Amino acid sequence: MIDINKEIERLDWSKEPKGLYEPIAYVLASGGKRLRPTLALTAAEVVLNGGLISGTALDDVLPAALALEVFHNFTLLHDDVMDHSAVRRGKPTVHVQWNQNTAILSGDQMLIEAYKLLERVPADKLPRTLRLFNEMATGVCEGQQLDVDFEHMSQVSIDDYMTMIEKKTSVLIAYAMRIGGYIAGASEAQEKALYEYGLHIGLAFQIQDDILDVYGDPKTFGKAIGGDICCNKKTILLLTALERADAESKAELLQWMMTTDRDAEKIKAVTELYDRLGVREEAESVMEEHTALALAALDRLPQNTATERLRVLAERLVTRKR
Amino acid sequence: MIDINKEIERLDWSKEPKGLYEPIAYVLASGGKRLRPTLALTAAEVVLNGGLISGTALDDVLPAALALEVFHNFTLLHDDVMDHSAVRRGKPTVHVQWNQNTAILSGDQMLIEAYKLLERVPADKLPRTLRLFNEMATGVCEGQQLDVDFEHMSQVSIDDYMTMIEKKTSVLIAYAMRIGGYIAGASEAQEKALYEYGLHIGLAFQIQDDILDVYGDPKTFGKAIGGDICCNKKTILLLTALERADAESKAELLQWMMTTDRDAEKIKAVTELYDRLGVREEAESVMEEHTALALAALDRLPQNTATERLRVLAERLVTRKR
Repeated sequence: MIDINKEIERLDWSKEPKGLYEPIAYVLASGGKRLRPTLALTAAEVVLNGGLISGTALDDVLPAALALEVFHNFTLLHDDVMDHSAVRRGKPTVHVQWNQNTAILSGDQMLIEAYKLLERVPADKLPRTLRLFNEMATGVCEGQQLDVDFEHMSQVSIDDYMTMIEKKTSVLIAYAMRIGGYIAGASEAQEKALYEYGLHIGLAFQIQDDILDVYGDPKTFGKAIGGDICCNKKTILLLTALERADAESKAELLQWMMTTDRDAEKIKAVTELYDRLGVREEAESVMEEHTALALAALDRLPQNTATERLRVLAERLVTRKR
Repeated sequence: MIDINKEIERLDWSKEPKGLYEPIAYVLASGGKRLRPTLALTAAEVVLNGGLISGTALDDVLPAALALEVFHNFTLLHDDVMDHSAVRRGKPTVHVQWNQNTAILSGDQMLIEAYKLLERVPADKLPRTLRLFNEMATGVCEGQQLDVDFEHMSQVSIDDYMTMIEKKTSVLIAYAMRIGGYIAGASEAQEKALYEYGLHIGLAFQIQDDILDVYGDPKTFGKAIGGDICCNKKTILLLTALERADAESKAELLQWMMTTDRDAEKIKAVTELYDRLGVREEAESVMEEHTALALAALDRLPQNTATERLRVLAERLVTRKR
């Protein structure tokens, strides 16, 4: 079995100039779930179906799996600059710990490092892996841009929202599954099923994130409850509420959205409005729908211990507390 | 003959979301010398030596040539953010025309677009092209970091300076030559000669830039004379002056470096100091040395009209006015 944390630790950042590489080491050492490389390797295991699991075939997938993790962390680094976020995974962000220019330049190098890891993909698989990786990377940047655009738009539909989170969050997870499967030799149908699984757990994951931000347990959630409400973030909850509300409730909601000085009161009032409109139940049903689609995609794949792990992951997602 | 400007115009940026792609179109439409793609194609022509020049072989090089130009423009975009530069090629920079977050995110996408262009490199040449491209990109980021580091260092040697400009400027030009040659089927010796030519004209080019910033003709130079002196930029002129000066001249120079309120006087005094110390002649001799090395590298290559164009380019570089 490949230990993904060990493999990430083995990447060498003790290079010069230190100002370029130390922030990369810092970001990659700060933990995280390592979800994307784990999924890429698990997708490969599903396809290999017990064949050569700890041998060459899985090692072939490892560089791309690491590239996905490095890419993911690159996006966090640059997103934190753009969002002026001061803390990530309990540590100061790079632009706080160093400065903004360092965060930009080391982020750029991190993106290049992701492509450097792709050099180790078997040559016959490289052209398509590069194409898939580029599609993924493009989707993520487009999703980030849509997220920015939404902040300034008065009308965002739930369809728009789903497109945005699909690109910003799901595409990376879906392509992790797809690339892992492809390099391991998946058939076209298997690749499609792996992709769908990733896409739908990604969507379910993001919706659960929106729900937990309002309804999470402050003890287990890890950050303050109601942050999205305070800054009027266009989550599935807010968009559903705006869609469902009658004239009176809508006026009340818009009034609260213009309130910026009474956070605790605002969180309480908007949550009550959500409760009244059945917004949580609606979001949960969308989330469960996507979980079901993810599980259905698994049924079209070889059934083995790796498939079982993916099933457990999808089910846990819906009941997670943070 | 491939028209590089037409090929750049043919790249399609009319995609959604507009906020992501319009700045890319803006940067690529703002001109520039197109030096790097032209050099990649010319390197290929040298190697092809009249064989199949307008046919498939040169078309094989085009995607990588375009990737190099897109990459170069990506570096300008992010460098302008980091340097807070308001104008580039006579137009407002992206972070001024849009905003900083747009400049960061569209820059990221531009880097990804460079790698997307590499998808079109012939499959058998892709693994090594990707490796060379990544080496180049890493060098450029390391060079940029060294440039930033130098600002805060009290002691920078001329060797340090040469390493920095080699990475920041020359590596991209050298790899343009090398990648163009490689894809066209250069032998190892030819690739090495192409690389050396690029490296040395890059160094000569950067040194000439330093010289023109002080000694250029304001009418033809295109920007204000003495900008580097005003901000104490560690150019080859300043570093040579610091190295050559006796105690008295050095004290005078350091005194001027601490002066920030009398720009015109400072430019005049420091230029006079440079003149007294023979700094310009020294820089010119280093530049000529590198031009000679570039020309010597050409002698090791097939001699044809493309080689001749490279010879003319190297000679012009030394006498250019802007």
